[in-house]
Formats: sequence, structure tokens, C-alpha cells
Amino acid sequence: MSHSDKTRTTVDIYGKSYTIIGQEPAHHVRMVASLVDQKMREIYDANQKLDTNKLAVLTAVNTMNDYLKLKEEYIELLDLYEKKEDVKK
Amino acid sequence: MSHSDKTRTTVDIYGKSYTIIGQEPAHHVRMVASLVDQKMREIYDANQKLDTNKLAVLTAVNTMNDYLKLKEEYIELLDLYEKKEDVKK
Repeated sequence: MSHSDKTRTTVDIYGKSYTIIGQEPAHHVRMVASLVDQKMREIYDANQKLDTNKLAVLTAVNTMNDYLKLKEEYIELLDLYEKKEDVKK
Repeated sequence: MSHSDKTRTTVDIYGKSYTIIGQEPAHHVRMVASLVDQKMREIYDANQKLDTNKLAVLTAVNTMNDYLKLKEEYIELLDLYEKKEDVKK
């Protein structure tokens, strides 16, 4: 399979079926979908009044927050790493 | 404000209002919300047949995918960093 080939993977998230088209292998898409499904269920457990639409948006917000925190940690680690490089020189 | 105090921040995402309760400062919550709003609009532009619910779930999937990619990069960098530590000893 060449790098430009796209895979179509059908996954279930929170009771609905989605076909995800992209370059990631199917097992990766399924893992991502399962993590999103899990996070939606956790947020629902914490607030059972939420409709599916709000639940999905809040899941995206929650994941984006995790992403930004990790990004900060990555930048801090990169800074430490680069300082170590300088010491070596 | 003590560390345990929670803030309530109201944000607009894709035309709907959400009150986010948490320990993050309001400006951070607004930035996260604006990134989610932006991603939803990008995904909508690529597929205008999607309803809001599917759009929100696919935004969560997309963000989770970015998170996992960054996590892999973080682990690789940590590995490089630790190897450098070992060389120093």
C-alpha cells in the first residue's frame, strides 16, 4: 500500500456508526474511537442531563485541554533536552 | 483564590453556549473553546453534509488523534533525553 492510499474504517462511538477516512491504519482509528467513546461515557456519568451533542462538544473540549497540557510538557522537556545539548558542546 | 476553587466560564462553541466548570483560569478555557470551535468549522468545511452531532464527535476523534501523536513524540523525546542523562553519568 502506498503512503497516499486512504483507509476507510467504520467505528461505533456512543451508539452511532462513523466511517473515518484517512491514512492511519484501521487498528489505530479503532483505538482513537474507543478512547473518544470512553471519554463521552465518563463525561455522561458526571452529568447525565447532557444531550449527545453537548456531550460530544465537551468531550472535544476535554481532549483539547489534555492536548494543550501535553504540549506544554513537551515544550518544557524540549527545553531541558536542548540545555543538555548545550552543556555537551 | 485557593487551588481547590472552581471557576465557571461561559463560552460559545459552534453557535451554542456552554458553561465549563473547572480549575483552569477563564482565559485558558476560552482559548480551548476557541480551538474546538475552529476545528469544528474546519471539519464542516471539508464535509458540509455532517450534522452538528457527528461534527462534534469527529472533532473529538480528530483531537484525540492529535493527542496520541503528540504523546508518541513526547515519549520519543523522553527516551532521547534519558539516554543523554545516561551518557553524562
